[in-house]
Amino acid sequence: MSLVLNAWYVGATAVEVVAIPLARTLLNIPVVFFRGDDGEPAALIDICPHRAVPLHMGSVVGDRLRCIYHGLEFDRKGVCRVNPHIADGRPDGLRVQTFPIVQRYGLIWIWLGDPDIADSAIIPDYPVFEAPERFTTGMGYTWVAADYRLMVDNLFDLSHAEYLHPGSVGVPGASKVSVTRVERTPDRVTIYYNIPDVPPPVVWHAAWTKSERIDQYSSMDWRGGGSCYLDLTVTAIGSPRSEGWSLPFAHLLTPETENSTHYFWLFARDFNLDDDALTHAIAEVGERAFNDEDRPVLEAAQRSMERSSAKLRNITVGDSASAAIRRRIDKQAFDTVETAKAVQ
Amino acid sequence: MSLVLNAWYVGATAVEVVAIPLARTLLNIPVVFFRGDDGEPAALIDICPHRAVPLHMGSVVGDRLRCIYHGLEFDRKGVCRVNPHIADGRPDGLRVQTFPIVQRYGLIWIWLGDPDIADSAIIPDYPVFEAPERFTTGMGYTWVAADYRLMVDNLFDLSHAEYLHPGSVGVPGASKVSVTRVERTPDRVTIYYNIPDVPPPVVWHAAWTKSERIDQYSSMDWRGGGSCYLDLTVTAIGSPRSEGWSLPFAHLLTPETENSTHYFWLFARDFNLDDDALTHAIAEVGERAFNDEDRPVLEAAQRSMERSSAKLRNITVGDSASAAIRRRIDKQAFDTVETAKAVQ
Amino acid sequence: MSLVLNAWYVGATAVEVVAIPLARTLLNIPVVFFRGDDGEPAALIDICPHRAVPLHMGSVVGDRLRCIYHGLEFDRKGVCRVNPHIADGRPDGLRVQTFPIVQRYGLIWIWLGDPDIADSAIIPDYPVFEAPERFTTGMGYTWVAADYRLMVDNLFDLSHAEYLHPGSVGVPGASKVSVTRVERTPDRVTIYYNIPDVPPPVVWHAAWTKSERIDQYSSMDWRGGGSCYLDLTVTAIGSPRSEGWSLPFAHLLTPETENSTHYFWLFARDFNLDDDALTHAIAEVGERAFNDEDRPVLEAAQRSMERSSAKLRNITVGDSASAAIRRRIDKQAFDTVETAKAVQ
Repeated sequence: MSLVLNAWYVGATAVEVVAIPLARTLLNIPVVFFRGDDGEPAALIDICPHRAVPLHMGSVVGDRLRCIYHGLEFDRKGVCRVNPHIADGRPDGLRVQTFPIVQRYGLIWIWLGDPDIADSAIIPDYPVFEAPERFTTGMGYTWVAADYRLMVDNLFDLSHAEYLHPGSVGVPGASKVSVTRVERTPDRVTIYYNIPDVPPPVVWHAAWTKSERIDQYSSMDWRGGGSCYLDLTVTAIGSPRSEGWSLPFAHLLTPETENSTHYFWLFARDFNLDDDALTHAIAEVGERAFNDEDRPVLEAAQRSMERSSAKLRNITVGDSASAAIRRRIDKQAFDTVETAKAVQ
Repeated sequence: MSLVLNAWYVGATAVEVVAIPLARTLLNIPVVFFRGDDGEPAALIDICPHRAVPLHMGSVVGDRLRCIYHGLEFDRKGVCRVNPHIADGRPDGLRVQTFPIVQRYGLIWIWLGDPDIADSAIIPDYPVFEAPERFTTGMGYTWVAADYRLMVDNLFDLSHAEYLHPGSVGVPGASKVSVTRVERTPDRVTIYYNIPDVPPPVVWHAAWTKSERIDQYSSMDWRGGGSCYLDLTVTAIGSPRSEGWSLPFAHLLTPETENSTHYFWLFARDFNLDDDALTHAIAEVGERAFNDEDRPVLEAAQRSMERSSAKLRNITVGDSASAAIRRRIDKQAFDTVETAKAVQ
Repeated sequence: MSLVLNAWYVGATAVEVVAIPLARTLLNIPVVFFRGDDGEPAALIDICPHRAVPLHMGSVVGDRLRCIYHGLEFDRKGVCRVNPHIADGRPDGLRVQTFPIVQRYGLIWIWLGDPDIADSAIIPDYPVFEAPERFTTGMGYTWVAADYRLMVDNLFDLSHAEYLHPGSVGVPGASKVSVTRVERTPDRVTIYYNIPDVPPPVVWHAAWTKSERIDQYSSMDWRGGGSCYLDLTVTAIGSPRSEGWSLPFAHLLTPETENSTHYFWLFARDFNLDDDALTHAIAEVGERAFNDEDRPVLEAAQRSMERSSAKLRNITVGDSASAAIRRRIDKQAFDTVETAKAVQ
């Protein structure tokens, strides 16, 4: 019981959603995204109600999606507007399910639960991704064969960096000197993880020239669904945080199934704004650290859990944060299970 | 509940059944076909009763099939005739299950249900495939990862051609002008689908030179099991049907499992009888239309239905025919389930 | 119900177990083997108790295995000796399950059941593999997609050699002239299979020059778990057995799952002791006979049994031996099922 339908998730990046339909499974639901000729995106269930053919195999005609098999056409509201197989060719009350979507931060956010309570105001507020004069941004995507809750564990337990990522973002000995604190509010769980007076991790070596040792401030913040936000600042040792460099990083997890995750990420920085090569380098280091170091561990843990009745044990401070999130997720998943049944 | 055991199905083409044993799963039953040195084909269950080794791994010795593992030999009736492991080497009451078979139209028809009611007289009568002086014939085979009932839907809903096959057999606008009628008798379901006064579909462009526009007559006929027969005639517009060209096409579906199908087809024509290149071209166009256009849609619909509780809705006239067939299949499958249990 | 936990199995060859951790699933249990810097091997469950990451992904540090994810270190007894995430870095009562192991005959034997009754004295006694002055030895390993009980059938039914292996170890007509006897004691089941006055099987052609015809003595002996031992001697026809050549062959089967088997083998010979090419040739012929002839048959029988309710029937004398073993295995598996539940 780990899938929370009544939450906003990232379903796609905005640039993926064009007039060629995009199929993606989200929380076990097959969804098709498309963008009509008026530029508006849409999300429908990816099953034609006639003969169960996936609608994404069809094509976009104006603002409608046409099924490849018999030419039925559905509009953005899911209403069948063209049915060549009835006498006058007009619709017949035939509909497909649609999902509320919102385009924000260059992403398509989707609500898969009860549409009556879909409130776009609760999409997490990440101003750094909408302030191009102060922040340069980038994004990426990958697919992971693991429960998204194992990824939440990974993101909130920042102490793993020193063991798993010593060659990029980890600081040897960090977990011995870090000052760590967990904060919970009804809507959020946040871990603060500050590391004073350390050499900069390898990832900063090329760009950072201000000092030989640094103070590193970081917090990871969960705001429901799979939205995790790392607020990371590095300063010359002892300098005020406002004089440091900021590199915020949103980790946006969307369960594909109980055992697999769509992983979208956004990052921003408030320094060297015009250095495109640096944007590329940050994306690449992050991707490499995840793909080569986190992914094998997370996918192997997933397989361990599937094949055995392995229980997780909480040891690190980060574990207490992710365990709190897991409890909330599981509680919400349970609360929405009736909705889930109705939707599927 | 979709597999009807008490029916004749095509198990193999006649040329496939030689002295090298052929293994094929039919209605979830592993079957081995072989042909003894007397030229007679046989069909046995493909499991040695000794140590469960598939008999198709063995070899044909005279009119018997010898198990590769310990040399037991079974004749066409399934009786063990040689057992080297008992004192005098004679049989010991050991038997394997056999299945009634009939070779007709260059195909091996098999009855997988109660052998006491296997009546070869009910194998569908397709005279065009046995009249070489009037009809030139061809055949083909493929395997499809879909429920054979989805293929019945496809075959009976001839209106899909215009959407899915506009570049080969479909006629744009055909479903608007077609004259369609469904006929049901206790043994058969037939749909008549006649299209008056249209340009010939692309597939006829090379061969047809009689007229710029045509009348197309077609009917698809189901006669139990998976036997569907398309009677297709094209005439110059307004000419009597007897002066047209006929291209009958038998679509013979044999469930491998609930979710996969052996698809055999026979075709014939009453024109250009000696044109071997034309025979080859017809086979190729049919195969390409199926493999490139029908197959992806049918296999995707199959996956949709497996992963969701998608219900089918009947919209076209063809749907009413295939729905009638589906009801009969499901009823017969239910009625024979006790037999099924006994056989397997 | 086929997996007997309370028995000794071969988990690995000794040379496989080094400072790079080795992961292997045994009786459905994920096990990690490693060898510390003191040369002692160890076997732990391959799941870190913290976040379920397989321990084999980590590294050996001294005599401990360190988890890759957060640096927890476990010693050979499974005790966590280093945990950087608690205040003073000392262990915290955290443990992982370990398994009794014994290194013997160049193999690592493992006990996966109740450790309190693990008695290394019941590891089968195979003196030929510890007498280098009299016997030259070799070993090998492969993985088989079949229930290990089908492999026991294969090993005890020596009559199959003439049908399945006529080009290597089989003697045509052997099952007609063989003198066969089965012996059962509480701990063992043995089949004696002696073939008098036959030409040597092909495998002996190159080495054997003593006589044109031979007497072949063989017995296959089961001693619990998956330990089968073939005592094979060939003599010039009519000569005393003590003057023949011996080629004992231990077949050591370790279930990976109910449907797959780790197959280790040891062989020895008391002739041409210094001929390394001969050792290599024996290994190769054995491997080829198994991989090309036994394996396809056993894996196909496994698939037959998985997909149908095929029952096995006992026909040969060997079958009566393997059936006796199967009854004992199934009985022991049933008796230890409570242990199994506790362990997993």
